Order: sequence, then C-alpha cells, then structure tokens
Amino acid sequence: MKVCRIEYFNAAHRLFKPEWSDEMNNNVFGKCNNPNYHGHNYKIEVWIDGAVNKETGYVMDLKKLKNIIKEQIIDRFDHKNLNLDCPEFKDKIPTAENIAEVCWTLLHNSFDKPYVLTVRLWETEKNIVEYNGK
Amino acid sequence: MKVCRIEYFNAAHRLFKPEWSDEMNNNVFGKCNNPNYHGHNYKIEVWIDGAVNKETGYVMDLKKLKNIIKEQIIDRFDHKNLNLDCPEFKDKIPTAENIAEVCWTLLHNSFDKPYVLTVRLWETEKNIVEYNGK
Amino acid sequence: MKVCRIEYFNAAHRLFKPEWSDEMNNNVFGKCNNPNYHGHNYKIEVWIDGAVNKETGYVMDLKKLKNIIKEQIIDRFDHKNLNLDCPEFKDKIPTAENIAEVCWTLLHNSFDKPYVLTVRLWETEKNIVEYNGK
Amino acid sequence: MKVCRIEYFNAAHRLFKPEWSDEMNNNVFGKCNNPNYHGHNYKIEVWIDGAVNKETGYVMDLKKLKNIIKEQIIDRFDHKNLNLDCPEFKDKIPTAENIAEVCWTLLHNSFDKPYVLTVRLWETEKNIVEYNGK
Amino acid sequence: MKVCRIEYFNAAHRLFKPEWSDEMNNNVFGKCNNPNYHGHNYKIEVWIDGAVNKETGYVMDLKKLKNIIKEQIIDRFDHKNLNLDCPEFKDKIPTAENIAEVCWTLLHNSFDKPYVLTVRLWETEKNIVEYNGK
Amino acid sequence: MKVCRIEYFNAAHRLFKPEWSDEMNNNVFGKCNNPNYHGHNYKIEVWIDGAVNKETGYVMDLKKLKNIIKEQIIDRFDHKNLNLDCPEFKDKIPTAENIAEVCWTLLHNSFDKPYVLTVRLWETEKNIVEYNGK
Repeated sequence: MKVCRIEYFNAAHRLFKPEWSDEMNNNVFGKCNNPNYHGHNYKIEVWIDGAVNKETGYVMDLKKLKNIIKEQIIDRFDHKNLNLDCPEFKDKIPTAENIAEVCWTLLHNSFDKPYVLTVRLWETEKNIVEYNGK
Repeated sequence: MKVCRIEYFNAAHRLFKPEWSDEMNNNVFGKCNNPNYHGHNYKIEVWIDGAVNKETGYVMDLKKLKNIIKEQIIDRFDHKNLNLDCPEFKDKIPTAENIAEVCWTLLHNSFDKPYVLTVRLWETEKNIVEYNGK
Repeated sequence: MKVCRIEYFNAAHRLFKPEWSDEMNNNVFGKCNNPNYHGHNYKIEVWIDGAVNKETGYVMDLKKLKNIIKEQIIDRFDHKNLNLDCPEFKDKIPTAENIAEVCWTLLHNSFDKPYVLTVRLWETEKNIVEYNGK
Repeated sequence: MKVCRIEYFNAAHRLFKPEWSDEMNNNVFGKCNNPNYHGHNYKIEVWIDGAVNKETGYVMDLKKLKNIIKEQIIDRFDHKNLNLDCPEFKDKIPTAENIAEVCWTLLHNSFDKPYVLTVRLWETEKNIVEYNGK
Repeated sequence: MKVCRIEYFNAAHRLFKPEWSDEMNNNVFGKCNNPNYHGHNYKIEVWIDGAVNKETGYVMDLKKLKNIIKEQIIDRFDHKNLNLDCPEFKDKIPTAENIAEVCWTLLHNSFDKPYVLTVRLWETEKNIVEYNGK
Repeated sequence: MKVCRIEYFNAAHRLFKPEWSDEMNNNVFGKCNNPNYHGHNYKIEVWIDGAVNKETGYVMDLKKLKNIIKEQIIDRFDHKNLNLDCPEFKDKIPTAENIAEVCWTLLHNSFDKPYVLTVRLWETEKNIVEYNGK
C-alpha cells in the first residue's frame, strides 16, 4: 500500500556551472542561466510504500508525514534562493532532478522505519521529475 | 498497456476504534475522530493492466469499466456514511487505506478476466493512497 | 483591484427539512437526505475588492486573509458535521447556497474595513455557488 | 530518475472497423462510431527513465524533450483527423490505446540513447492509458 | 446568489466560411480550417443567478440543472461533428464564441423562470469564452 | 462576449521597500522579503470583452491574443528577476497586485481597438488577483 502527501514551496534558482564559460552555460541552460535568478512554485508529492498497521488502518498518519515534509523540505526551501540560501546546493546545480534527489535524501534520513520512498517534483505544470533512491 | 477510468463519490466517515478509550482515539485520529462524522469528495482512479485486444484496439472498453465502478463503488458508497451505512466497514476503520483495499477487492471480484488491478484513491487534494492487491 | 485566497474544509451534512414528511424530503433532496449524512471537501474562494495601498502594493496581505479565513471558516467547519456541530445551521439547511451565505456573513463581520466581498464555494468538482451579499 | 514533459494536441477521430457491419461497430464502439467523427483534447505525458548526467544535473534537457514531442507528435497529430489525415492509423483503430502505442514508437525511434520510455495519454478528464513498450 | 454546474462534451469541428477562398480561410482560421476536421473536449460552466428559495435553500436544484444541460447540450453535441451533424451550425461557424452563444440560447429557452444565465465554455486548457446574452 | 487566453511565466521577486528599515520590511512582507529573492510560476488569464465579428465568429483570434501576450508579457518577464531585470518594477514593489496592473497596462496599450480588458494573475494555487483598469 502506498500513501502520498502533496505540499508546495516557492523558490528562486539559477542553473549554471561556475567551471564553465558564460557561453557554455548559455548553450546548456539557456534562459534558466539568468544571473539574477528566476523562480518556481514547486509541488512535491511524497509517496511512502509500506504495510497497513492493522490497529490504525494507516500506513503512516499523513499528518505526521505532513509535519516531516514541513520540517525537512518546506522550512528549508520555501521562499528561499536555492543557490544562495541553501548549502545543499552549494556544489550541486539546482535542476529539478537534483532538487528531487536532495529532497529524497532529506526525507529518507528523517524516517525511523525503512519505508520505500518516492519523491515526485513538479517544477511547472508541464515539467515533472521522479526519484526513488535508485 | 494500462487503462484508467476516474470516478467520484461523496461520503461521510469517522476514524475511531471502539476498543480504545476516547483519549486514545483522539491521540491517534485527532479531529478525524469527531463522533458526529465529517466527509470527503473521494476521487477514485481504477487502473487495469492487460493486453490490447487486436480486434477492438481496447484493453477494456472504458464504458464497461465505468459501469463496473458505478455498480461496485459509486452505488455502494456515494452519499453514504461509511461507518453506519456500509457493512464493509463494520469491523474496519474507514481510513483511505482501508477504503482503497475494500474498493480493490470489490472491483477485483467483479472482473471475469485476471486483470492486474490498481486503485488510487484521493481523499483530499493533498492526500492519496494506492493499492494493487499486494 | 480584487484579491483572492483559496482554502479547503472537509465536512459532513444532510439536506432535510424537519417540518416535511420523509417522502417530501426524499422528493426534494434525494440521496442528499441520507439520515446518516454524507460529506464533501469544500473549496472556498474569498474575493476582496478594494484599492491597492500605495505603500505596500497590497489590497490586503493575503497572509492576513488566510488567517481570517482560518479563524472564521476552517476552525469552525473543518472536520465537522454541519447539521449537528454548527449552530449556524440549526435552522438553516446546509445547502451550498446557505453555507456560502453563512461564510460571507462571518467573513464580512470580521473585516475592519468596508471591503466588497465575494465568496465562491465549490461543493464538488462540478457544483459551485457564489455569493456577494446581495 | 524519471523526467516528464506534458504536451497537448487536439484531434478528431472515429472508432470503427471496416470489416464489421454497422450493427457490430455500433455495438462495440457506441457513439464513438459516429461516421462524421468527434474529437478530443489529448494530453500526453512523456516519461523518460535514465541516469542524471553529473555535469548538467539533467537526465535530459526538457526543452529538448519538448522539441522532440513537437516534431514527432504535435506537428503530426495536432488539428488533424486521425483516421483521414494520419497514415499511422490507416489500418489501426485510433483508440487511446493505439494512439499511445503509436506515440511511444515514434518517440522511441527518435531518441539516440536507450532511454526507458513511458507514454501516458489522457483522452478526457476521466479516461487515461499508459504504455511502456511491453 | 449564483449557482453553477459543470459538464463536458467531446466534438469535432472545422472553422471555415464557404463564401471565402481556401486562401482566405487559411489566412483567417489557420490549422482550425483542416477540411477533415479536428476536435476538442469542451467544458461548459452554466451559471444561474437567482434568489435562494427559502423553503429548500436552493437557487435551483443542481441535479435539475444537470438534467437540463444533458438534454439541451450534451445529448445534442457530445460525440458529434458540429459542422455536419448539428443544424445549429448550418450557417454559423462553430467558433467557441458561436458555440457558447448557441448553448446560451438553448439553455435560456429551456428555463421556465427568468434566470440570469451565463455560459462559460472551455475549448482547451488555455482558451475560454463567456457569454451572458448581451 | 468575453474571450480569454491563459499563459504562464516563471520569475523571481522580492517584496521590500528601500525607504523602510529591515524590521519594518520584515513586519510587512515577512518571508517574501528574503533579500536573495524567491520565485513563482505565474499564471495569467487575459480576458477581452467585445463584440463577435459576424464574418469570423471571433471576438478576437486567440492565436493573435496569444502572440500579444507573448510579446508584451512572456518575453518581458519569463525567467527574469522582476526587481533587478525589469524596469517596470524599478519604483514599484512586485506584489501580485502591481504585477497585474503592469500587465494590464502593457496589454491595454498594445491593442488597436478599445477592448474591455481584465487580467487575472495566479501567484500560487491559492493566491489570485484581478485587475480591470479601474
């Protein structure tokens, strides 16, 4: 049985690689390389795969999952500049793929049980990434 | 090839365990334990995994799937109190997980072919569960 | 300039009129008259029409509007049985129209300025009502 | 890591099998067999499963995926009659299942790397199909 | 108080003017002029503005509105070719504007009370028209 | 008759007033005052109210409206930092209200006919503003 909680955070970011020339950064990242940053409303789906507790009928209380997402993801990234404010992206380009991987790791480390975890991240209404730790 | 039909039903429910004290029920279920019930618009996605029939180009006619969902799920649970009106939840707390499992079993038993079946149930715009029989 | 904040609450209700016979109630309200109640995820859009404050660029800080909606609407109706738990519906059938009017009045009385207020209430994905006090 | 791009196309189609009698076609396809065609807004989700490139932080630049979808799917099917304008459906009934399979094959043949590809196609807000090549 | 019911229909159409040359039709209507038609999932919002009946708490029973929309709109236009199957568009180009006006007139003529009526029609996820009879 | 086209742009912004102290800015704008910016996916609905052209059945060709929105809004604000990159917000705090007003003026000045214009701007899934020039 899988359960999912959806939350949102709003952040600024810039895709660029300091080791590369401006031309190279523009070729690869296009307008996502704007040096003054742009931003997104990120939607995160956090999926937990586990057994249903026969006492409670829950895989996991989704209010608890909501609180974990708030502590690990929303409080950390909401209304932030991912490049400047967040050490997680000090040496990692904040592409949707890398944000999903960072969120997955933060969430995975915060569970006290070995849940199977999948993170799906919507960067826009048309661009989505999904990561399950593999 | 997987095919899916989405339908909706509106129901009242209460999460509580008669064997537990009021305090215990409140600790575990919080405001979902309101003795006078609350309710939801449930959205159900029914996914069938099977081979495409070469004659028709269908895995399954989605009008037939719509009718099966209507008979098995909507007519049974729509505009009902899951705790009081539905024998399926006589000894089962109507959490989203348990509702999904009950829907899966009802649907699975109504197919004449061994389709692989997955049920995804949205309790709110932010809380989802998914069950595939395992 | 109009600004809007959207929030959600989940509640149980029953449509019936105690003065009427069962037959009359069933004729008028159909399955919404289930004596054991059913429920909905209500989505409420609260629209304020006013001048933009030249200092702040806000008509109204939407965080403040969010808090007013929480105090006046969500804390009052979320996870409640509108018929049994809420004195606002003691002598008023909790149709979407009447819920919208009650929400409008509660919100209107909580503003310290004479904003023009419109409440739009979604009972399901297909049924909406809108009230502006007239 | 999976990444997804969503796009839309609007097309007309008719479900019928020339070898069958009118009665048989009507029995199987119902109003989808209207000889004058009807139509849909198709939403296509294209999911790619692959490794994250450590240099770019991308599985695949979604702008490139957008362009491939445009060339292979949108330019081919948007504002078209699938039965009359599209040779892909000359001998194939344009059911959602068959459209998804055709889209999958067109996309799969256009990638220069062996990505794992899944196509999810929404024919309406309630009918979805998904194909991953197996 | 306004109330709204949302319904859907799927249809094929072609935008062209028989009096015009092919070149003129292509200049004005572009790919919407495909002689073999294309199609859409149309979403229609039907808004009624009226007084709340103090007995029932309803402006209008939305089940009745649903039935009127089914009889007047869905049964007439769903799974149809608007140009070929529907006499309403014999001398009228089935643009979203004209479809909305036709729907408005059909609905307006079917009410036994002088409701203020507004029709909002979604042709795609990005194109909407709204008509209120004026 | 009203017609609407919906488009999207992604931008970074910061709400603050240079004349105010940090404390004052934080009191009024809270986390929206992050000096390193944050960002949003903005959804803009552009509504035009006008007569239907009897020749074409259009109030306005929505492809033309799409192009005007692209030139006036998307090319100007998409993937930009509203505070740093956009002279329109040099002396104007980029609140949703002010962005809507700026968009309204840009669009209004680009029409060659005196259309009645309304701009609705979604900053998040829960916060909306609407401006019609008054």
